Amino acid sequence: MELLVVKDRRVDYDGSAIGSHWAYRNFGILGNSLVVFRGKCNVKVGEMIDIEDLRQSKEIKSDDMVHYIVEVFDLVSTLFASTLQKLFIAKLCEVLGEYGIETVRKGDDIYVDGKKLSISIATVSPVSVKIHIGINVEAKGIPEGVEAVGLKELDITDVEDFMEKTGKALAAEFEKVKKDSLKVRWAQ
Amino acid sequence: MELLVVKDRRVDYDGSAIGSHWAYRNFGILGNSLVVFRGKCNVKVGEMIDIEDLRQSKEIKSDDMVHYIVEVFDLVSTLFASTLQKLFIAKLCEVLGEYGIETVRKGDDIYVDGKKLSISIATVSPVSVKIHIGINVEAKGIPEGVEAVGLKELDITDVEDFMEKTGKALAAEFEKVKKDSLKVRWAQ
Amino acid sequence: MELLVVKDRRVDYDGSAIGSHWAYRNFGILGNSLVVFRGKCNVKVGEMIDIEDLRQSKEIKSDDMVHYIVEVFDLVSTLFASTLQKLFIAKLCEVLGEYGIETVRKGDDIYVDGKKLSISIATVSPVSVKIHIGINVEAKGIPEGVEAVGLKELDITDVEDFMEKTGKALAAEFEKVKKDSLKVRWAQ
Amino acid sequence: MELLVVKDRRVDYDGSAIGSHWAYRNFGILGNSLVVFRGKCNVKVGEMIDIEDLRQSKEIKSDDMVHYIVEVFDLVSTLFASTLQKLFIAKLCEVLGEYGIETVRKGDDIYVDGKKLSISIATVSPVSVKIHIGINVEAKGIPEGVEAVGLKELDITDVEDFMEKTGKALAAEFEKVKKDSLKVRWAQ
Amino acid sequence: MELLVVKDRRVDYDGSAIGSHWAYRNFGILGNSLVVFRGKCNVKVGEMIDIEDLRQSKEIKSDDMVHYIVEVFDLVSTLFASTLQKLFIAKLCEVLGEYGIETVRKGDDIYVDGKKLSISIATVSPVSVKIHIGINVEAKGIPEGVEAVGLKELDITDVEDFMEKTGKALAAEFEKVKKDSLKVRWAQ
Amino acid sequence: MELLVVKDRRVDYDGSAIGSHWAYRNFGILGNSLVVFRGKCNVKVGEMIDIEDLRQSKEIKSDDMVHYIVEVFDLVSTLFASTLQKLFIAKLCEVLGEYGIETVRKGDDIYVDGKKLSISIATVSPVSVKIHIGINVEAKGIPEGVEAVGLKELDITDVEDFMEKTGKALAAEFEKVKKDSLKVRWAQ
Repeated sequence: MELLVVKDRRVDYDGSAIGSHWAYRNFGILGNSLVVFRGKCNVKVGEMIDIEDLRQSKEIKSDDMVHYIVEVFDLVSTLFASTLQKLFIAKLCEVLGEYGIETVRKGDDIYVDGKKLSISIATVSPVSVKIHIGINVEAKGIPEGVEAVGLKELDITDVEDFMEKTGKALAAEFEKVKKDSLKVRWAQ
Repeated sequence: MELLVVKDRRVDYDGSAIGSHWAYRNFGILGNSLVVFRGKCNVKVGEMIDIEDLRQSKEIKSDDMVHYIVEVFDLVSTLFASTLQKLFIAKLCEVLGEYGIETVRKGDDIYVDGKKLSISIATVSPVSVKIHIGINVEAKGIPEGVEAVGLKELDITDVEDFMEKTGKALAAEFEKVKKDSLKVRWAQ
Repeated sequence: MELLVVKDRRVDYDGSAIGSHWAYRNFGILGNSLVVFRGKCNVKVGEMIDIEDLRQSKEIKSDDMVHYIVEVFDLVSTLFASTLQKLFIAKLCEVLGEYGIETVRKGDDIYVDGKKLSISIATVSPVSVKIHIGINVEAKGIPEGVEAVGLKELDITDVEDFMEKTGKALAAEFEKVKKDSLKVRWAQ
Repeated sequence: MELLVVKDRRVDYDGSAIGSHWAYRNFGILGNSLVVFRGKCNVKVGEMIDIEDLRQSKEIKSDDMVHYIVEVFDLVSTLFASTLQKLFIAKLCEVLGEYGIETVRKGDDIYVDGKKLSISIATVSPVSVKIHIGINVEAKGIPEGVEAVGLKELDITDVEDFMEKTGKALAAEFEKVKKDSLKVRWAQ
Repeated sequence: MELLVVKDRRVDYDGSAIGSHWAYRNFGILGNSLVVFRGKCNVKVGEMIDIEDLRQSKEIKSDDMVHYIVEVFDLVSTLFASTLQKLFIAKLCEVLGEYGIETVRKGDDIYVDGKKLSISIATVSPVSVKIHIGINVEAKGIPEGVEAVGLKELDITDVEDFMEKTGKALAAEFEKVKKDSLKVRWAQ
Repeated sequence: MELLVVKDRRVDYDGSAIGSHWAYRNFGILGNSLVVFRGKCNVKVGEMIDIEDLRQSKEIKSDDMVHYIVEVFDLVSTLFASTLQKLFIAKLCEVLGEYGIETVRKGDDIYVDGKKLSISIATVSPVSVKIHIGINVEAKGIPEGVEAVGLKELDITDVEDFMEKTGKALAAEFEKVKKDSLKVRWAQ
């Protein structure tokens, strides 16, 4: 899994990055990839993936987020996508724990003191698994009715360092997952 | 995922439970299953799944362990098996955190204060994904050279309650993973 | 497979219900589903799935039909879709037999005394198998040149009861298929 | 699907024919195949596929049966195997109907007047789907406690003709299933 | 694999033939197919499959080409698509060798004396593998900067015969590949 | 695809190397691999993969061969295995062409002047694709009735260099195949 942390500029997330080959089209990264970037979040209805959100006409937005876009080509399955998403969220909680922040993970959501820190979706394209994770930098521009929190409120102020650290942790996690999948014989 | 916590008797683990349909053959549980039981661990060489262990002639044993045997029929893939395994290990760490125990997860291993609490393997049969996780109740009968720790040393003395709590947590995690995989539209 | 029989209102079929997640989007049913409803049938050319029909510029329409929309997420394959479709058609013939009606099944078509009672299509979306079956309530509004028959001509006048009975029969058939697939060991 | 009806000799069924490539190894038939033959049935415990039967220590035997061994290489899935099996059983019932015999199908079992006419199993090898269907020629040598019936009791005395007719019907059904799977466009 | 060599008319290639079921929609060929035809090549940007070309704003055009459109439904995988494409290109080189022409194959490109003779792309639709190969008849109307060569410059003037010969060779190659895949037992 | 050319010792081929994870078990190579080695060939009947050979009681042996053992974990399919095998054989012919040797490829066999230079088999394990290719160094110890030729008769005397050159060519071919599979968007 090739990791790219975009530091030289902001990239807003409108949902289109969930399409296949986004990392290759935009950054020339071939194959499994994790792109970490920072920018606004405002998902257009036409790009919404979670049908539950669509049914409830939810808004998905935030003024400032760290975004993770994952693409894996090894296996096209929403069950695998959903499993990898939860593992990545759990890993992010573990890294936050290293910052001294206590989190509660509920499936693919991260909470700190009952406040929502993150959003996420996992699905497939016809050729890959795609995952988006967004972590609030500041809890601004959040849909009404959602009690949110951001990295700044948690005293994580070096956002670039956080992007680097978490990006490396997720990529390493995937490499471990992949390596282990290759060293086991099949069972009867 | 049907959960069975075996409380009325001890079941030793010799590696054969990693075979397909073990839960159905032994407990009549059809389909995706999680069986939690307690007993010795002594994996016969012929049942070893991790070829890295085989190459290093490692022993896999412990006098008293809580065992988790997972079987999922939805998707036959070692990559999925390895991902689900790590997620389940992360979940166990989260439950241990609720007990006030600080853990470090390295892939599929759980450490407490640098000591190994668990063993695990994930693979496929021709029809399913199979995962075994073992958690030391006491750090006895462990292979030489391994610094281990058990639940008792961590003041978790109600082992049955731990089996129940963790079994429910893992089964619920899987149900969440599965549910989320069904509510997303595919991406372009 | 969750069964929903829509009795409180008519739902027309224009072909769009063949898209993925239709049951979830419209009725909140997650996962494998069978929705039975009653309404007109008039499939727009842009929604036609059978390329043979498209090549022959066939019309697919009827003034009053019982519709079955099946979605299965377990396995994405047109061969499986086509097999399940034929099994469901055979099951419908068996239920019609219980009403005392003698049918002839030709693949996915049901005939009574040489007259066509049904239409059907089976395909895949990128995440699921989708099947549509339509059974004429009355042989009205049928494309010219097709000799058709409807439930009313066959003295099945309690259409709601028929919807209920056949819906339950198909859902039960699928559950039996699924259960049996989980209780067999693999062969060498 | 290549059809072979073995008429020149009896072939007994001990369960080993459920292994992959049986038709190729024994008759030189490459690819999808249906072999119809006649002989005793006595499945060795080591060859039993149905774990439910194994758990209940059931015997599977009959003195004289028509056997159908199906192998399909297109798709390796027990769910597909189980679906195709039920469709083939339904087709056999339809052919029996043409003989004037009224049957009741319960999943993969055929009953006439409450008596069992058939046995069947469907599973996968690592490279194919395999199905066995056995139809009693005479209800002799059946396990105790099973009320059985055979073709002879149903006045089907030309067994070779029955083998030919049903073999052709099943092979044609599969060809129709396959053809239909290739003529549909995918749905959104 | 059904082979169709279109000789009675020219067919231009604008990229749309890469869509699924093109051979069935246009020529009524069901299942695996190879259609060989002759015509201009001018791929619209919206039909471009190679994202590398898209990123570099390459043009794909030629005034006169022999085109091969392959569709295989057995296995939906870009890795398989890419492998089959290279095998077909290698086979075309072998046939050119029979004409006495020495070629150099670089992946999916054919060169003669350092000049490019062909273009090719391989991908998947949601239901099939699709491959396009184009061989210049004359090196005219080629994008600037590309040194190209055509069949005429290589003294292959009977283009119809070439279409026939290569079409048969590719179809036979696929049949051999398929046959061999069915006659091997699986390995431990 | 990791390449290992074993130069320091001879390794005989008895067919067991066709099993899954052979390269990892014996050389510690994880994941896709190509191991090239030199040694006798004498395949035990119990290890024979080609059922056609088994049916004809063929012997597979040679006193001195260069062997290639390929394992690919990306896709488990005998059709893919058979395709990749033919591509690798075609590539070997291309490399032989660079030595000035004219070959004729018939599927997975290489002939020089009507004499057989090679043997090959391709199949799957439950977790991988496996291919064996053997090229005679000398045409000695060949089964009776087979007209064979070896590298030495073709004036290729630096066998180690040949092993190195062909090993690199095959591994590079696979990397090109893989890379191309990742840079194409899917088609409608």
